[in-house]
Amino acid sequence: MIYIDGKKVASEIQQELKKSISTLKGRKPCLVVVMVGNHPPSQIYVNRKIQACAEVGILSVQKHFPENLTEVALLKVIELLNSDESVDSILVQLPLPPHINVGKIMQKIAPEKDVDGFHPLNVGKLLAGESDGFLPCTPLAVKTLLQYYNIEVSGRHAVIFGRSNIVGKPIAAMLLQSMPGGNATVTVAHRLSTNVKALALLADILIVAIGQPKFITEDMVKEGAVVIDVGINKIEDRSSAKGYKIVGDVDFENVKKKCSFITPVPGGVGPMTIAMLLKNTLQSYERKFL
Amino acid sequence: MIYIDGKKVASEIQQELKKSISTLKGRKPCLVVVMVGNHPPSQIYVNRKIQACAEVGILSVQKHFPENLTEVALLKVIELLNSDESVDSILVQLPLPPHINVGKIMQKIAPEKDVDGFHPLNVGKLLAGESDGFLPCTPLAVKTLLQYYNIEVSGRHAVIFGRSNIVGKPIAAMLLQSMPGGNATVTVAHRLSTNVKALALLADILIVAIGQPKFITEDMVKEGAVVIDVGINKIEDRSSAKGYKIVGDVDFENVKKKCSFITPVPGGVGPMTIAMLLKNTLQSYERKFL
Repeated sequence: MIYIDGKKVASEIQQELKKSISTLKGRKPCLVVVMVGNHPPSQIYVNRKIQACAEVGILSVQKHFPENLTEVALLKVIELLNSDESVDSILVQLPLPPHINVGKIMQKIAPEKDVDGFHPLNVGKLLAGESDGFLPCTPLAVKTLLQYYNIEVSGRHAVIFGRSNIVGKPIAAMLLQSMPGGNATVTVAHRLSTNVKALALLADILIVAIGQPKFITEDMVKEGAVVIDVGINKIEDRSSAKGYKIVGDVDFENVKKKCSFITPVPGGVGPMTIAMLLKNTLQSYERKFL
Repeated sequence: MIYIDGKKVASEIQQELKKSISTLKGRKPCLVVVMVGNHPPSQIYVNRKIQACAEVGILSVQKHFPENLTEVALLKVIELLNSDESVDSILVQLPLPPHINVGKIMQKIAPEKDVDGFHPLNVGKLLAGESDGFLPCTPLAVKTLLQYYNIEVSGRHAVIFGRSNIVGKPIAAMLLQSMPGGNATVTVAHRLSTNVKALALLADILIVAIGQPKFITEDMVKEGAVVIDVGINKIEDRSSAKGYKIVGDVDFENVKKKCSFITPVPGGVGPMTIAMLLKNTLQSYERKFL
Protein backbone atom coordinates (compact mmCIF):
# COMPACT_ATOMS: atom_id res chain seq x y z
CA MET A 1 0.00 0.00 0.00
CA ILE A 2 1.30 3.41 -0.98
CA TYR A 3 0.42 6.67 0.74
CA ILE A 4 -0.32 9.42 -1.72
CA ASP A 5 1.74 12.27 -0.37
CA GLY A 6 -0.07 15.41 -1.44
CA LYS A 7 2.23 17.62 0.55
CA LYS A 8 5.30 16.38 -1.27
CA VAL A 9 3.72 16.57 -4.72
CA ALA A 10 2.35 20.05 -4.02
CA SER A 11 5.77 21.20 -2.89
CA GLU A 12 7.40 19.86 -6.07
CA ILE A 13 4.80 21.58 -8.25
CA GLN A 14 5.27 24.83 -6.36
CA GLN A 15 9.03 24.61 -6.88
CA GLU A 16 8.47 24.21 -10.62
CA LEU A 17 6.04 27.11 -10.69
CA LYS A 18 8.53 29.26 -8.81
CA LYS A 19 11.20 28.46 -11.37
CA SER A 20 8.89 29.27 -14.31
CA ILE A 21 7.74 32.50 -12.73
CA SER A 22 11.29 33.61 -11.99
CA THR A 23 12.07 33.54 -15.72
CA LEU A 24 9.11 35.75 -16.68
CA LYS A 25 9.98 39.13 -18.09
CA GLY A 26 7.94 42.16 -17.11
CA ARG A 27 5.40 42.14 -14.32
CA LYS A 28 4.57 39.02 -12.31
CA PRO A 29 1.22 37.15 -12.41
CA CYS A 30 -1.36 38.74 -10.11
CA LEU A 31 -4.19 37.09 -8.19
CA VAL A 32 -6.86 39.08 -6.38
CA VAL A 33 -8.71 37.32 -3.58
CA VAL A 34 -12.05 38.85 -2.64
CA MET A 35 -13.50 38.12 0.77
CA VAL A 36 -16.78 39.37 2.23
CA GLY A 37 -17.57 39.28 5.93
CA ASN A 38 -15.86 37.55 8.79
CA HIS A 39 -15.73 33.80 8.51
CA PRO A 40 -12.66 32.68 10.45
CA PRO A 41 -11.95 29.49 8.44
CA SER A 42 -12.14 31.56 5.24
CA GLN A 43 -9.52 33.93 6.59
CA ILE A 44 -7.26 30.95 7.31
CA TYR A 45 -7.71 29.63 3.77
CA VAL A 46 -7.14 33.05 2.25
CA ASN A 47 -3.98 33.54 4.32
CA ARG A 48 -2.64 30.21 3.08
CA LYS A 49 -3.33 31.13 -0.53
CA ILE A 50 -1.65 34.49 -0.14
CA GLN A 51 1.36 32.96 1.53
CA ALA A 52 1.65 30.33 -1.20
CA CYS A 53 1.51 33.08 -3.84
CA ALA A 54 4.37 34.89 -2.14
CA GLU A 55 6.44 31.71 -2.03
CA VAL A 56 6.26 31.15 -5.80
CA GLY A 57 6.48 34.80 -6.83
CA ILE A 58 2.84 35.49 -7.66
CA LEU A 59 1.65 38.95 -6.63
CA SER A 60 -1.51 38.65 -4.56
CA VAL A 61 -3.95 41.24 -3.31
CA GLN A 62 -6.60 40.61 -0.71
CA LYS A 63 -9.74 42.71 -0.93
CA HIS A 64 -11.71 42.30 2.26
CA PHE A 65 -15.18 43.82 2.52
CA PRO A 66 -17.58 44.03 5.46
CA GLU A 67 -20.41 41.52 5.90
CA ASN A 68 -23.01 44.07 4.80
CA LEU A 69 -21.52 44.70 1.35
CA THR A 70 -24.42 44.62 -1.10
CA GLU A 71 -24.60 42.27 -4.04
CA VAL A 72 -24.62 45.24 -6.39
CA ALA A 73 -21.45 46.60 -4.82
CA LEU A 74 -19.72 43.22 -5.07
CA LEU A 75 -20.72 42.93 -8.73
CA LYS A 76 -19.18 46.36 -9.27
CA VAL A 77 -15.95 45.29 -7.53
CA ILE A 78 -15.71 42.29 -9.85
CA GLU A 79 -16.44 44.42 -12.89
CA LEU A 80 -13.52 46.66 -12.04
CA LEU A 81 -11.22 43.68 -11.47
CA ASN A 82 -12.37 42.18 -14.78
CA SER A 83 -11.30 45.26 -16.67
CA ASP A 84 -8.09 45.82 -14.70
CA GLU A 85 -5.23 44.82 -17.01
CA SER A 86 -2.88 44.27 -14.09
CA VAL A 87 -5.10 41.53 -12.62
CA ASP A 88 -4.80 38.07 -14.17
CA SER A 89 -6.94 36.05 -11.80
CA ILE A 90 -9.87 36.64 -9.50
CA LEU A 91 -10.95 34.38 -6.68
CA VAL A 92 -14.04 35.07 -4.60
CA GLN A 93 -13.68 33.19 -1.34
CA LEU A 94 -16.77 31.18 -0.40
CA PRO A 95 -19.02 31.15 1.50
CA LEU A 96 -20.54 34.56 0.79
CA PRO A 97 -23.09 36.13 3.14
CA PRO A 98 -26.61 34.80 2.51
CA HIS A 99 -27.90 38.02 0.95
CA ILE A 100 -25.52 37.57 -1.98
CA ASN A 101 -26.38 35.20 -4.82
CA VAL A 102 -23.28 33.07 -5.35
CA GLY A 103 -24.25 31.97 -8.87
CA LYS A 104 -24.65 35.56 -9.97
CA ILE A 105 -21.22 36.49 -8.61
CA MET A 106 -19.52 33.48 -10.22
CA GLN A 107 -21.06 34.38 -13.58
CA LYS A 108 -19.79 37.94 -13.26
CA ILE A 109 -16.12 36.97 -13.03
CA ALA A 110 -14.48 37.18 -16.47
CA PRO A 111 -14.10 33.52 -17.53
CA GLU A 112 -10.47 34.12 -18.54
CA LYS A 113 -9.69 35.28 -14.97
CA ASP A 114 -11.80 32.59 -13.25
CA VAL A 115 -9.00 30.48 -11.76
CA ASP A 116 -11.44 28.64 -9.50
CA GLY A 117 -13.16 27.26 -12.62
CA PHE A 118 -16.65 27.92 -11.23
CA HIS A 119 -17.96 30.16 -14.03
CA PRO A 120 -20.54 28.14 -16.01
CA LEU A 121 -18.58 28.78 -19.21
CA ASN A 122 -15.57 27.02 -17.67
CA VAL A 123 -17.80 24.29 -16.25
CA GLY A 124 -19.25 23.77 -19.72
CA LYS A 125 -15.83 23.62 -21.35
CA LEU A 126 -14.83 21.00 -18.82
CA LEU A 127 -17.85 18.79 -19.57
CA ALA A 128 -17.52 19.32 -23.32
CA GLY A 129 -13.84 18.36 -23.20
CA GLU A 130 -12.52 21.71 -24.42
CA SER A 131 -9.10 22.55 -23.09
CA ASP A 132 -9.14 26.35 -23.09
CA GLY A 133 -11.09 26.84 -19.85
CA PHE A 134 -10.00 26.55 -16.22
CA LEU A 135 -10.37 23.35 -14.24
CA PRO A 136 -11.53 23.71 -10.63
CA CYS A 137 -8.72 23.25 -8.13
CA THR A 138 -9.83 20.29 -6.02
CA PRO A 139 -10.80 18.03 -8.95
CA LEU A 140 -7.62 19.06 -10.74
CA ALA A 141 -5.68 18.14 -7.58
CA VAL A 142 -7.20 14.66 -7.62
CA LYS A 143 -6.42 14.13 -11.29
CA THR A 144 -2.89 15.42 -10.85
CA LEU A 145 -2.22 13.06 -7.94
CA LEU A 146 -3.51 10.07 -9.93
CA GLN A 147 -1.20 11.02 -12.78
CA TYR A 148 1.77 11.68 -10.53
CA TYR A 149 1.53 8.18 -9.06
CA ASN A 150 1.01 6.65 -12.54
CA ILE A 151 -2.32 5.23 -11.47
CA GLU A 152 -4.11 3.84 -14.51
CA VAL A 153 -7.50 5.48 -14.94
CA SER A 154 -8.41 4.52 -18.50
CA GLY A 155 -10.98 1.72 -18.65
CA ARG A 156 -11.13 1.42 -14.86
CA HIS A 157 -14.19 2.11 -12.75
CA ALA A 158 -14.08 5.35 -10.77
CA VAL A 159 -16.87 5.64 -8.21
CA ILE A 160 -17.39 9.11 -6.80
CA PHE A 161 -19.38 9.74 -3.64
CA GLY A 162 -20.72 13.27 -3.62
CA ARG A 163 -22.15 15.43 -6.41
CA SER A 164 -21.21 18.96 -5.39
CA ASN A 165 -20.41 21.56 -8.01
CA ILE A 166 -17.01 22.03 -6.42
CA VAL A 167 -15.85 18.42 -6.22
CA GLY A 168 -18.09 15.51 -7.25
CA LYS A 169 -19.55 16.69 -10.54
CA PRO A 170 -16.35 18.20 -11.99
CA ILE A 171 -14.22 15.19 -10.97
CA ALA A 172 -16.72 12.93 -12.71
CA ALA A 173 -16.55 15.11 -15.82
CA MET A 174 -12.73 15.10 -15.82
CA LEU A 175 -12.24 11.36 -15.38
CA LEU A 176 -14.80 10.60 -18.08
CA GLN A 177 -13.19 12.66 -20.85
CA SER A 178 -11.47 11.09 -23.78
CA MET A 179 -8.07 12.54 -22.88
CA PRO A 180 -4.92 11.63 -20.94
CA GLY A 181 -5.81 10.98 -17.31
CA GLY A 182 -9.41 10.30 -18.33
CA ASN A 183 -11.32 7.49 -20.05
CA ALA A 184 -12.60 5.97 -16.80
CA THR A 185 -15.99 4.38 -16.44
CA VAL A 186 -17.54 6.81 -13.98
CA THR A 187 -20.24 6.36 -11.38
CA VAL A 188 -21.54 9.20 -9.22
CA ALA A 189 -23.39 8.33 -6.03
CA HIS A 190 -24.94 10.66 -3.46
CA ARG A 191 -27.24 10.83 -0.45
CA LEU A 192 -30.22 9.47 -2.41
CA SER A 193 -28.29 6.51 -3.79
CA THR A 194 -29.30 3.06 -2.63
CA ASN A 195 -26.96 0.05 -2.25
CA VAL A 196 -24.16 2.33 -1.21
CA LYS A 197 -21.88 -0.51 -0.16
CA ALA A 198 -22.35 -2.38 -3.43
CA LEU A 199 -21.59 0.82 -5.35
CA ALA A 200 -18.41 1.45 -3.36
CA LEU A 201 -17.28 -2.13 -3.96
CA LEU A 202 -17.43 -1.57 -7.71
CA ALA A 203 -14.65 0.98 -7.47
CA ASP A 204 -11.17 0.48 -8.82
CA ILE A 205 -10.78 4.13 -7.85
CA LEU A 206 -12.96 5.36 -5.01
CA ILE A 207 -13.26 9.11 -4.55
CA VAL A 208 -15.16 10.42 -1.55
CA ALA A 209 -16.30 13.98 -1.01
CA ILE A 210 -19.39 14.05 1.18
CA GLY A 211 -18.26 15.45 4.52
CA GLN A 212 -19.04 12.48 6.79
CA PRO A 213 -16.26 11.13 9.01
CA LYS A 214 -15.56 7.41 8.53
CA PHE A 215 -18.31 7.05 5.94
CA ILE A 216 -16.20 4.60 3.92
CA THR A 217 -15.44 1.53 6.01
CA GLU A 218 -13.23 -1.44 5.28
CA ASP A 219 -16.07 -3.65 4.05
CA MET A 220 -16.93 -1.09 1.36
CA VAL A 221 -13.55 -1.21 -0.37
CA LYS A 222 -12.42 -3.74 -2.94
CA GLU A 223 -9.02 -5.34 -2.37
CA GLY A 224 -6.40 -3.30 -4.23
CA ALA A 225 -8.56 -0.24 -4.81
CA VAL A 226 -7.22 3.31 -4.98
CA VAL A 227 -8.90 5.50 -2.35
CA ILE A 228 -8.95 9.28 -2.66
CA ASP A 229 -10.42 11.06 0.35
CA VAL A 230 -11.53 14.62 -0.31
CA GLY A 231 -13.39 15.00 3.00
CA ILE A 232 -12.27 17.48 5.63
CA ASN A 233 -14.12 16.98 8.92
CA LYS A 234 -13.42 18.35 12.36
CA ILE A 235 -14.06 15.80 15.08
CA GLU A 236 -13.65 15.97 18.83
CA ASP A 237 -10.27 14.75 20.05
CA ARG A 238 -9.61 15.11 23.77
CA SER A 239 -6.03 13.96 23.35
CA SER A 240 -5.27 16.98 21.22
CA ALA A 241 -4.43 20.38 22.71
CA LYS A 242 -6.96 21.98 20.37
CA GLY A 243 -9.65 19.52 21.47
CA TYR A 244 -10.33 18.39 17.90
CA LYS A 245 -8.66 16.79 14.93
CA ILE A 246 -9.18 16.80 11.18
CA VAL A 247 -10.26 13.57 9.51
CA GLY A 248 -11.53 12.66 6.06
CA ASP A 249 -14.58 10.68 4.93
CA VAL A 250 -12.68 7.38 5.02
CA ASP A 251 -11.98 5.16 8.02
CA PHE A 252 -8.30 5.49 7.16
CA GLU A 253 -6.69 3.09 9.63
CA ASN A 254 -8.89 0.17 8.63
CA VAL A 255 -9.36 0.93 4.96
CA LYS A 256 -5.67 1.42 4.19
CA LYS A 257 -4.95 -2.30 4.62
CA LYS A 258 -7.04 -3.09 1.56
CA CYS A 259 -5.84 -0.33 -0.76
CA SER A 260 -3.13 -0.14 -3.37
CA PHE A 261 -3.00 3.65 -2.86
CA ILE A 262 -4.66 5.94 -0.33
CA THR A 263 -4.62 9.65 0.47
CA PRO A 264 -4.26 10.60 4.13
CA VAL A 265 -6.27 13.47 5.63
CA PRO A 266 -4.66 15.86 6.26
CA GLY A 267 -1.76 15.72 3.82
CA GLY A 268 -3.50 14.20 0.78
CA VAL A 269 -5.69 16.20 -1.55
CA GLY A 270 -5.78 19.31 0.65
CA PRO A 271 -2.25 20.63 0.13
CA MET A 272 -2.62 20.10 -3.61
CA THR A 273 -5.56 22.44 -4.10
CA ILE A 274 -3.52 25.57 -3.45
CA ALA A 275 -0.81 24.34 -5.83
CA MET A 276 -3.53 23.99 -8.49
CA LEU A 277 -4.73 27.53 -7.80
CA LEU A 278 -1.20 28.82 -8.35
CA LYS A 279 -0.92 26.76 -11.52
CA ASN A 280 -4.20 28.16 -12.86
CA THR A 281 -3.05 31.68 -12.00
CA LEU A 282 0.17 31.24 -13.97
CA GLN A 283 -1.89 29.78 -16.82
CA SER A 284 -4.21 32.79 -16.93
CA TYR A 285 -1.13 35.02 -17.15
CA GLU A 286 0.51 32.91 -19.85
CA ARG A 287 -2.63 32.85 -21.97
CA LYS A 288 -2.60 36.62 -21.94
CA PHE A 289 1.09 37.26 -22.51
CA LEU A 290 2.73 34.21 -24.10
CA MET B 1 -43.89 -4.47 -20.46
CA ILE B 2 -44.83 -1.02 -21.70
CA TYR B 3 -43.72 0.54 -24.97
CA ILE B 4 -42.67 4.12 -24.55
CA ASP B 5 -44.51 5.82 -27.37
CA GLY B 6 -42.40 8.83 -28.28
CA LYS B 7 -44.55 9.65 -31.27
CA LYS B 8 -47.66 9.97 -29.14
CA VAL B 9 -45.97 12.00 -26.40
CA ALA B 10 -44.32 14.29 -28.96
CA SER B 11 -47.65 14.87 -30.65
CA GLU B 12 -49.30 15.77 -27.32
CA ILE B 13 -46.50 18.20 -26.49
CA GLN B 14 -46.74 19.77 -29.92
CA GLN B 15 -50.48 20.23 -29.49
CA GLU B 16 -49.86 22.01 -26.20
CA LEU B 17 -47.18 24.20 -27.75
CA LYS B 18 -49.53 25.06 -30.62
CA LYS B 19 -52.18 26.14 -28.13
CA SER B 20 -49.73 28.28 -26.15
CA ILE B 21 -48.34 29.89 -29.30
CA SER B 22 -51.81 30.68 -30.63
CA THR B 23 -52.47 32.84 -27.59
CA LEU B 24 -49.30 34.93 -28.00
CA LYS B 25 -49.84 38.56 -28.82
CA GLY B 26 -47.54 40.26 -31.33
CA ARG B 27 -45.11 38.39 -33.53
CA LYS B 28 -44.62 34.61 -33.33
CA PRO B 29 -41.44 32.88 -32.06
CA CYS B 30 -38.81 32.61 -34.78
CA LEU B 31 -36.19 29.89 -35.31
CA VAL B 32 -33.40 30.23 -37.86
CA VAL B 33 -31.80 27.00 -39.06
CA VAL B 34 -28.36 27.39 -40.62
CA MET B 35 -27.07 24.68 -42.92
CA VAL B 36 -23.76 24.56 -44.75
CA GLY B 37 -23.08 22.26 -47.70
CA ASN B 38 -25.02 19.32 -49.05
CA HIS B 39 -25.47 16.50 -46.62
CA PRO B 40 -28.68 14.73 -47.63
CA PRO B 41 -29.61 13.39 -44.16
CA SER B 42 -29.15 16.92 -42.75
CA GLN B 43 -31.58 18.27 -45.32
CA ILE B 44 -34.12 15.65 -44.24
CA TYR B 45 -33.68 16.60 -40.56
CA VAL B 46 -33.91 20.30 -41.35
CA ASN B 47 -37.07 19.78 -43.40
CA ARG B 48 -38.66 17.91 -40.50
CA LYS B 49 -37.79 20.70 -38.09
CA ILE B 50 -39.18 23.35 -40.40
CA GLN B 51 -42.36 21.40 -40.95
CA ALA B 52 -42.81 20.89 -37.22
CA CYS B 53 -42.34 24.63 -36.65
CA ALA B 54 -45.08 25.36 -39.17
CA GLU B 55 -47.44 22.92 -37.47
CA VAL B 56 -47.19 24.64 -34.09
CA GLY B 57 -47.06 28.21 -35.37
CA ILE B 58 -43.34 28.94 -35.00
CA LEU B 59 -41.89 31.01 -37.82
CA SER B 60 -38.83 29.29 -39.25
CA VAL B 61 -36.21 30.43 -41.71
CA GLN B 62 -33.70 28.15 -43.36
CA LYS B 63 -30.38 29.70 -44.33
CA HIS B 64 -28.54 27.35 -46.63
CA PHE B 65 -24.96 28.12 -47.62
CA PRO B 66 -22.63 26.37 -50.07
CA GLU B 67 -20.05 23.83 -48.87
CA ASN B 68 -17.21 26.31 -49.41
CA LEU B 69 -18.55 28.96 -47.01
CA THR B 70 -15.60 30.09 -44.90
CA GLU B 71 -15.54 29.89 -41.13
CA VAL B 72 -15.18 33.66 -40.95
CA ALA B 73 -18.26 34.12 -43.12
CA LEU B 74 -20.27 31.68 -40.98
CA LEU B 75 -19.20 33.50 -37.81
CA LYS B 76 -20.42 36.72 -39.42
CA VAL B 77 -23.78 35.11 -40.31
CA ILE B 78 -24.22 34.07 -36.68
CA GLU B 79 -23.21 37.50 -35.43
CA LEU B 80 -25.95 39.06 -37.52
CA LEU B 81 -28.52 36.52 -36.29
CA ASN B 82 -27.41 37.13 -32.70
CA SER B 83 -28.16 40.83 -33.00
CA ASP B 84 -31.36 40.40 -35.00
CA GLU B 85 -34.22 41.20 -32.62
CA SER B 86 -36.71 39.25 -34.72
CA VAL B 87 -34.76 35.99 -34.29
CA ASP B 88 -35.34 34.13 -31.01
CA SER B 89 -33.43 30.93 -31.69
CA ILE B 90 -30.53 29.79 -33.83
CA LEU B 91 -29.74 26.23 -34.76
CA VAL B 92 -26.66 25.31 -36.78
CA GLN B 93 -27.28 21.93 -38.34
CA LEU B 94 -24.41 19.49 -37.84
CA PRO B 95 -22.21 18.16 -39.31
CA LEU B 96 -20.40 21.19 -40.67
CA PRO B 97 -17.76 20.87 -43.43
CA PRO B 98 -14.36 19.85 -42.02
CA HIS B 99 -12.74 23.25 -42.61
CA ILE B 100 -15.09 24.80 -40.04
CA ASN B 101 -14.34 24.46 -36.32
CA VAL B 102 -17.60 23.32 -34.73
CA GLY B 103 -16.64 24.40 -31.21
CA LYS B 104 -15.88 27.91 -32.40
CA ILE B 105 -19.25 28.16 -34.15
CA MET B 106 -21.16 26.83 -31.12
CA GLN B 107 -19.46 29.38 -28.88
CA LYS B 108 -20.42 32.18 -31.25
CA ILE B 109 -24.17 31.57 -30.97
CA ALA B 110 -25.69 33.90 -28.37
CA PRO B 111 -26.37 31.59 -25.37
CA GLU B 112 -29.89 32.98 -25.00
CA LYS B 113 -30.68 31.90 -28.60
CA ASP B 114 -28.87 28.55 -28.39
CA VAL B 115 -31.89 26.21 -28.44
CA ASP B 116 -29.68 23.20 -29.13
CA GLY B 117 -27.99 23.76 -25.75
CA PHE B 118 -24.50 23.17 -27.16
CA HIS B 119 -22.91 26.51 -26.16
CA PRO B 120 -20.47 25.81 -23.29
CA LEU B 121 -22.29 28.35 -21.12
CA ASN B 122 -25.47 26.30 -21.43
CA VAL B 123 -23.53 23.06 -20.93
CA GLY B 124 -22.04 24.54 -17.77
CA LYS B 125 -25.41 25.67 -16.46
CA LEU B 126 -26.70 22.15 -17.01
CA LEU B 127 -23.87 20.55 -15.04
CA ALA B 128 -24.04 23.18 -12.30
CA GLY B 129 -27.81 22.67 -11.96
CA GLU B 130 -28.78 26.21 -12.94
CA SER B 131 -32.16 26.42 -14.60
CA ASP B 132 -31.77 29.47 -16.83
CA GLY B 133 -29.88 27.80 -19.68
CA PHE B 134 -31.10 25.55 -22.48
CA LEU B 135 -31.08 21.78 -22.22
CA PRO B 136 -29.99 19.88 -25.33
CA CYS B 137 -32.91 18.30 -27.17
CA THR B 138 -32.12 14.58 -27.12
CA PRO B 139 -31.27 14.37 -23.41
CA LEU B 140 -34.30 16.52 -22.65
CA ALA B 141 -36.39 14.11 -24.74
CA VAL B 142 -35.18 11.19 -22.63
CA LYS B 143 -35.90 12.97 -19.36
CA THR B 144 -39.33 14.08 -20.57
CA LEU B 145 -40.28 10.52 -21.58
CA LEU B 146 -39.20 9.16 -18.19
CA GLN B 147 -41.32 11.80 -16.48
CA TYR B 148 -44.30 11.28 -18.79
CA TYR B 149 -44.41 7.57 -17.93
CA ASN B 150 -43.93 8.31 -14.22
CA ILE B 151 -40.76 6.25 -14.14
CA GLU B 152 -39.01 6.72 -10.82
CA VAL B 153 -35.48 8.01 -11.34
CA SER B 154 -34.56 9.22 -7.86
CA GLY B 155 -32.25 6.83 -6.03
CA ARG B 156 -32.23 4.36 -8.92
CA HIS B 157 -29.19 3.44 -10.95
CA ALA B 158 -29.06 4.89 -14.44
CA VAL B 159 -26.34 3.39 -16.62
CA ILE B 160 -25.55 5.31 -19.78
CA PHE B 161 -23.61 3.81 -22.66
CA GLY B 162 -21.95 6.54 -24.69
CA ARG B 163 -20.27 9.78 -23.64
CA SER B 164 -20.92 12.11 -26.58
CA ASN B 165 -21.41 15.82 -25.96
CA ILE B 166 -24.82 15.58 -27.63
CA VAL B 167 -26.28 12.64 -25.71
CA GLY B 168 -24.27 10.70 -23.13
CA LYS B 169 -22.63 13.45 -21.09
CA PRO B 170 -25.65 15.79 -20.90
CA ILE B 171 -28.06 12.94 -20.03
CA ALA B 172 -25.73 11.92 -17.22
CA ALA B 173 -25.61 15.50 -15.97
CA MET B 174 -29.40 15.83 -16.08
CA LEU B 175 -30.24 12.59 -14.28
CA LEU B 176 -27.68 13.34 -11.56
CA GLN B 177 -29.02 16.75 -10.56
CA SER B 178 -30.79 17.34 -7.31
CA MET B 179 -34.07 18.29 -8.99
CA PRO B 180 -37.34 16.70 -10.11
CA GLY B 181 -36.62 13.98 -12.66
CA GLY B 182 -33.06 13.71 -11.34
CA ASN B 183 -31.37 12.27 -8.25
CA ALA B 184 -30.32 9.05 -9.96
CA THR B 185 -27.09 7.25 -9.23
CA VAL B 186 -25.40 7.64 -12.60
CA THR B 187 -22.82 5.51 -14.37
CA VAL B 188 -21.35 6.43 -17.74
CA ALA B 189 -19.67 3.71 -19.78
CA HIS B 190 -18.00 3.97 -23.19
CA ARG B 191 -15.76 2.14 -25.67
CA LEU B 192 -12.88 1.91 -23.19
CA SER B 193 -15.03 0.50 -20.39
CA THR B 194 -14.36 -3.04 -19.30
CA ASN B 195 -16.94 -5.50 -17.92
CA VAL B 196 -19.57 -4.02 -20.18
CA LYS B 197 -22.12 -6.71 -19.44
CA ALA B 198 -21.73 -6.36 -15.68
CA LEU B 199 -22.15 -2.59 -15.99
CA ALA B 200 -25.31 -2.96 -18.06
CA LEU B 201 -26.73 -5.41 -15.54
CA LEU B 202 -26.43 -2.78 -12.81
CA ALA B 203 -28.98 -0.61 -14.55
CA ASP B 204 -32.45 0.07 -13.28
CA ILE B 205 -32.55 2.49 -16.19
CA LEU B 206 -30.35 1.64 -19.16
CA ILE B 207 -29.73 4.38 -21.72
CA VAL B 208 -27.81 3.51 -24.86
CA ALA B 209 -26.37 5.98 -27.35
CA ILE B 210 -23.37 4.48 -29.09
CA GLY B 211 -24.46 3.78 -32.66
CA GLN B 212 -24.01 -0.01 -32.73
CA PRO B 213 -26.96 -2.14 -33.83
CA LYS B 214 -27.97 -4.85 -31.30
CA PHE B 215 -25.20 -3.84 -28.90
CA ILE B 216 -27.44 -4.48 -25.90
CA THR B 217 -28.53 -8.08 -25.82
CA GLU B 218 -30.98 -9.90 -23.55
CA ASP B 219 -28.30 -11.19 -21.19
CA MET B 220 -27.15 -7.63 -20.47
CA VAL B 221 -30.48 -6.44 -19.09
CA LYS B 222 -31.75 -6.86 -15.56
CA GLU B 223 -35.28 -8.19 -15.17
CA GLY B 224 -37.66 -5.24 -14.94
CA ALA B 225 -35.22 -2.59 -16.18
CA VAL B 226 -36.24 0.47 -18.15
CA VAL B 227 -34.45 0.57 -21.51
CA ILE B 228 -34.06 3.79 -23.48
CA ASP B 229 -32.53 3.36 -26.91
CA VAL B 230 -31.09 6.53 -28.43
CA GLY B 231 -29.30 4.74 -31.27
CA ILE B 232 -30.28 5.29 -34.89
CA ASN B 233 -28.58 2.81 -37.22
CA LYS B 234 -29.25 1.98 -40.84
CA ILE B 235 -28.92 -1.74 -41.55
CA GLU B 236 -29.44 -3.75 -44.72
CA ASP B 237 -32.96 -5.15 -45.09
CA ARG B 238 -33.72 -6.94 -48.36
CA SER B 239 -37.35 -7.33 -47.44
CA SER B 240 -37.77 -3.58 -47.50
CA ALA B 241 -38.34 -1.62 -50.69
CA LYS B 242 -35.60 0.81 -49.62
CA GLY B 243 -33.17 -2.04 -49.04
CA TYR B 244 -32.49 -0.95 -45.45
CA LYS B 245 -34.20 -0.37 -42.15
CA ILE B 246 -33.58 1.80 -39.09
CA VAL B 247 -32.74 0.06 -35.81
CA GLY B 248 -31.45 1.22 -32.44
CA ASP B 249 -28.56 0.01 -30.29
CA VAL B 250 -30.74 -2.53 -28.48
CA ASP B 251 -31.72 -6.01 -29.67
CA PHE B 252 -35.32 -4.93 -29.24
CA GLU B 253 -37.22 -8.18 -29.90
CA ASN B 254 -35.24 -10.14 -27.33
CA VAL B 255 -34.61 -7.42 -24.77
CA LYS B 256 -38.21 -6.26 -24.55
CA LYS B 257 -39.27 -9.46 -22.74
CA LYS B 258 -37.17 -8.48 -19.74
CA CYS B 259 -38.06 -4.79 -19.50
CA SER B 260 -40.66 -2.89 -17.57
CA PHE B 261 -40.47 -0.10 -20.19
CA ILE B 262 -38.70 0.12 -23.53
CA THR B 263 -38.44 2.66 -26.35
CA PRO B 264 -38.82 1.33 -29.86
CA VAL B 265 -36.62 2.59 -32.71
CA PRO B 266 -38.02 4.28 -34.68
CA GLY B 267 -40.84 5.86 -32.67
CA GLY B 268 -39.16 6.25 -29.27
CA VAL B 269 -36.73 9.04 -28.49
CA GLY B 270 -36.41 10.24 -32.09
CA PRO B 271 -39.80 11.93 -32.54
CA MET B 272 -39.38 13.65 -29.18
CA THR B 273 -36.24 15.58 -30.06
CA ILE B 274 -38.01 17.90 -32.47
CA ALA B 275 -40.74 18.53 -29.90
CA MET B 276 -38.00 19.57 -27.45
CA LEU B 277 -36.50 21.92 -30.05
CA LEU B 278 -39.89 23.59 -30.45
CA LYS B 279 -40.26 23.80 -26.68
CA ASN B 280 -36.83 25.42 -26.32
CA THR B 281 -37.70 27.86 -29.10
CA LEU B 282 -40.88 28.93 -27.33
CA GLN B 283 -38.86 29.24 -24.12
CA SER B 284 -36.29 31.53 -25.73
CA TYR B 285 -39.16 33.71 -26.94
CA GLU B 286 -40.90 33.73 -23.55
CA ARG B 287 -37.72 34.64 -21.71
CA LYS B 288 -37.42 37.68 -23.93
CA PHE B 289 -41.01 38.86 -23.94
CA LEU B 290 -42.86 37.45 -20.92
